[in-house]
Amino acid sequence: MAVYTKVDDEALESFLTLYNIGGLLSYKGIAEGVENTNFLLHTEEGYYILTLYEKRVEVADLPFFLGLMTHLAGKGLECPIAVPQKSGETLGELAGKPAAIISFLDGHGVSKPQPKHCFELGKEMAAFHLASQDFPIERPNALSVDGWRPLFEDCAGRCDDIVMGLNVLIENELRELEDLWPLDLPRGVIHADLFPDNVFFIGEKLSGLIDFYFACNDAFVYDIAICLNAWCFERDNAFNITKARALLKGYESVRPLNNKERTALPLLARGAALRFLLTRSYDWLNTPEGALVRPKDPLEYLQKLRFHQSVVSPSAYGLDS
Amino acid sequence: MAVYTKVDDEALESFLTLYNIGGLLSYKGIAEGVENTNFLLHTEEGYYILTLYEKRVEVADLPFFLGLMTHLAGKGLECPIAVPQKSGETLGELAGKPAAIISFLDGHGVSKPQPKHCFELGKEMAAFHLASQDFPIERPNALSVDGWRPLFEDCAGRCDDIVMGLNVLIENELRELEDLWPLDLPRGVIHADLFPDNVFFIGEKLSGLIDFYFACNDAFVYDIAICLNAWCFERDNAFNITKARALLKGYESVRPLNNKERTALPLLARGAALRFLLTRSYDWLNTPEGALVRPKDPLEYLQKLRFHQSVVSPSAYGLDS
Repeated sequence: MAVYTKVDDEALESFLTLYNIGGLLSYKGIAEGVENTNFLLHTEEGYYILTLYEKRVEVADLPFFLGLMTHLAGKGLECPIAVPQKSGETLGELAGKPAAIISFLDGHGVSKPQPKHCFELGKEMAAFHLASQDFPIERPNALSVDGWRPLFEDCAGRCDDIVMGLNVLIENELRELEDLWPLDLPRGVIHADLFPDNVFFIGEKLSGLIDFYFACNDAFVYDIAICLNAWCFERDNAFNITKARALLKGYESVRPLNNKERTALPLLARGAALRFLLTRSYDWLNTPEGALVRPKDPLEYLQKLRFHQSVVSPSAYGLDS
Repeated sequence: MAVYTKVDDEALESFLTLYNIGGLLSYKGIAEGVENTNFLLHTEEGYYILTLYEKRVEVADLPFFLGLMTHLAGKGLECPIAVPQKSGETLGELAGKPAAIISFLDGHGVSKPQPKHCFELGKEMAAFHLASQDFPIERPNALSVDGWRPLFEDCAGRCDDIVMGLNVLIENELRELEDLWPLDLPRGVIHADLFPDNVFFIGEKLSGLIDFYFACNDAFVYDIAICLNAWCFERDNAFNITKARALLKGYESVRPLNNKERTALPLLARGAALRFLLTRSYDWLNTPEGALVRPKDPLEYLQKLRFHQSVVSPSAYGLDS
């Protein structure tokens, strides 16, 4: 959400000579994406996003992320793609950072998603899952069940500083999820961060997905579980089954779930809630006072987790049983 | 340099219905302008800047700023203009803040200005001075000689915390400038903040001026004095007479200076250096530790002031005597 790296006009003009997109007309730092520095770039050929990858993105993962975007666009999905240099390379270096020029995608996140937005999201997510099935690079999900315990240990027993009792609650939930986590679900590349910020709409029409920097290989239904958490609760953290039903209906209109996936949904929804509870707790405990960015509230995901713990059947999400 | 106010897509879509610029395609917070919240806006009609005026801009001054931009553009100067609403109004309200939609101006600031850039700047500044002469609204310069002592008093004797001896130096300089400040120089609307950030170039061609939120009525040559400080010193604060000569030559190619202005230049250059020394000292002393924005170094302007104090004739700036 910030411009971490300054880019000088001369360095940028010289970087642009590597591309076939004309000379520099303007560039402005934009507040988009949590982890990277982004500029809105205007050249003689059009508008682009210039991204400089900051240290939280692994350079070794960039061919996966950039390649995935090109792969998806090739299958007709609306998403930004990295513009190739004259050499064919999509990744370059600018101001000492790995850098790419990404096509500009119109649309904007919806601040108050309605069921119709959830339906469109479901459809697009399913299309993403189908389109990425033959993508040749793999990237394990560092934030799935195996990654949660190390993250919990990094919080070093301080979760009770957030709210009394949180430590034991997480410990118990973690043990249960580790025991029960299903490993035989249909899998492939998932987006893994389809929050409303990353799903663009123009009016009621979904115009595309952005921010593929958490994408990884995992169970498809885990992507759905993340979206149920991110899209189907109200501001007071009450679950909205109408939105969940719309999301699942949209999804199944493109890729029907099998029985294992349907059965697994409540457990995976708990897992997805725990994943964000853990990363937010970690950030909460490790953000210095007076820091630039105020960490997001972990307790939102504690409330969501409690809802999923109360679920006894996938029909609670609007799935026909 | 930040997005202070969040704008929700629904509120923005409804704001756009007041204009004839089509529906919303995208908007992104941009890191431009020190005082306001800015978004890069894409609508069906094109690209714009959406500005929300934060509390450091006086609402009562907005008709001056917005009117000036329209006036200058009407005279053929390249500068952004406020897009009128269907009602003719250029100023609206969004997210509880005064807001305007400003045309998008291509170009970017030059990080290492050369004499040719200084020449272009001089020409454009003179054109600005001529074009604004019949602008009907007045706005006194709160940051000219009368405003410096209150600013110094707000530093409450703490300037020695910045560097030992600064208090006495400012006190003496201020007294001398108050005594000698000329009041009979040609005057009109000046930009008053023509730093390299605010002067856009495409290649070597000046594409326009931006950020009119310090514009005010004052001596034209005071605007030149600000630019001599902002454009004609190297990074080690050594004065570059070649750049100054180019700037003045560019200026005089459009509006020749009279003798009073030439004679006044060294004193006004001291005044301009003192003005930025004072505002930066104030910000330095009043920025809490760990604040979002690191204040700019006041001592840069102390060194510039010392240079101007050593000047005995306008020829030191490359003016023919």
